[in-house]
Amino acid sequence: MTEIAAPPHPFDAAVTLRAAEDGRTRGRTTPDYTNMVGPFGGVTAAALLRAVQQHPDRLGDPISLTVNYAGPVADGDFDITARAVRTNRTNQHWQLELTQDGVVATTATAVFGTRRDTWSDTELDVPEVPSAETVPARTLPEFIAWARNYEMRFVEGAVPEQDAGEHPDSTTTLWVRDTPARPLDFPALTALSDVFYPRVFLRRGRYMPAGTVSLTVYFHADAAQLDTQGDDFVLGTARTHRFSQGYFDQAAQLWGRDGTLLATSHQLVYFKD
Amino acid sequence: MTEIAAPPHPFDAAVTLRAAEDGRTRGRTTPDYTNMVGPFGGVTAAALLRAVQQHPDRLGDPISLTVNYAGPVADGDFDITARAVRTNRTNQHWQLELTQDGVVATTATAVFGTRRDTWSDTELDVPEVPSAETVPARTLPEFIAWARNYEMRFVEGAVPEQDAGEHPDSTTTLWVRDTPARPLDFPALTALSDVFYPRVFLRRGRYMPAGTVSLTVYFHADAAQLDTQGDDFVLGTARTHRFSQGYFDQAAQLWGRDGTLLATSHQLVYFKD
Repeated sequence: MTEIAAPPHPFDAAVTLRAAEDGRTRGRTTPDYTNMVGPFGGVTAAALLRAVQQHPDRLGDPISLTVNYAGPVADGDFDITARAVRTNRTNQHWQLELTQDGVVATTATAVFGTRRDTWSDTELDVPEVPSAETVPARTLPEFIAWARNYEMRFVEGAVPEQDAGEHPDSTTTLWVRDTPARPLDFPALTALSDVFYPRVFLRRGRYMPAGTVSLTVYFHADAAQLDTQGDDFVLGTARTHRFSQGYFDQAAQLWGRDGTLLATSHQLVYFKD
Repeated sequence: MTEIAAPPHPFDAAVTLRAAEDGRTRGRTTPDYTNMVGPFGGVTAAALLRAVQQHPDRLGDPISLTVNYAGPVADGDFDITARAVRTNRTNQHWQLELTQDGVVATTATAVFGTRRDTWSDTELDVPEVPSAETVPARTLPEFIAWARNYEMRFVEGAVPEQDAGEHPDSTTTLWVRDTPARPLDFPALTALSDVFYPRVFLRRGRYMPAGTVSLTVYFHADAAQLDTQGDDFVLGTARTHRFSQGYFDQAAQLWGRDGTLLATSHQLVYFKD
């Protein structure tokens, strides 16, 4: 009798890294997470985080991650080099590069560390929203392949219909989770922080060339707090502060259904109108 | 007759870099910008930005900067290496390291680029505050040397007195400028983005060990918009979203007096209570 192992979740397949020469690790883009140009930036960020997580020298869990999208990632293999530039008693600083055929496509820095009990407080209020079950699921347009891996229930700021016209603000709030369902972990949370389509589409009511230049994620929860979320929905909200001269920022929060602020995230996005 | 040149502004002295061996540049900490441990993080960030600005390969102006404070910077000389990892048509990605005696103290990444006219909008509202002239100037405690280089007029959330007791929120809003006055430019704006003392001091009403782990600045204004500010006050506001397990985030905005959103900034801070 031949036993057939279940295939991995598409997200795990997309962030699988295997050892390569010179201490590098090698991954491969998957069609499941294709964006308009190259792979979904969130999954690239998750693969970079994963490279640190599985590095033998790694200390603790993710504290912060910054990813700079320097150029397009082509379909196929990519190499990641992860270097611990400094290890302190409770934290560790990493520099990363993602290359294809020796050309840098993405750079990143990460801080990992151990956490300990201290005075704590979440000062920000959870957005007041209806429960996930009462909000209809909605898909992104078919040509955005990666979005098919997320169940999205938009509370406000859904993707505009073609020629929807201008929208007064840039806020999108949604319940979101992987589909098929998958327990939340740091790479999945990293990818979720980039799940918001470019805010300029919402404001202008139409699509246009736009791409993340730099993405930063601050992890506010530890592994145990992520475990608690299981494969439940996460509440995400994102908005822009200023659009100017071909760039805008996008600030996001990701909340657990239990009211835990799991991560805050920021990105700077290029656009061409 | 001997002509004596005016000494440079203390800020310019603190971010002066001279060419060193192997394409590196060398700077030197100045007592003017000393913090509790090592130099003020804002001036270190400004020196890193400056290293890119004066690099012969530099394209355009700053778009984003992320600085990771990996370890303390000792008083004395430091070396900066700046490497353009990828140059595109309209933007350029940099990796930087600040070392002392070959040990990495700080790493950074920066995106520089050219800007062009597009649809623009500032979606965030300017905080409603009294004019700078009607708010009294206040100094930080004498042992925080760097703060003496800033004129600070706190609208809310001034530095707590010793044993002030808990404060209900973490927001500080202030009018701030270099003293002596100095025209605003990208390095000065970078330093200003770190001018907010750690939010945990305000919430807890007391000092404790705290230090920035990672700082990101998004530049929303171009050089002409900075020039327009002259040496006038900038309105800064900062707050925290979550304090948890020895870390908290700090989100800041810097506005020109004319209502221009000049920069938004984020940092993750370590604290020990």
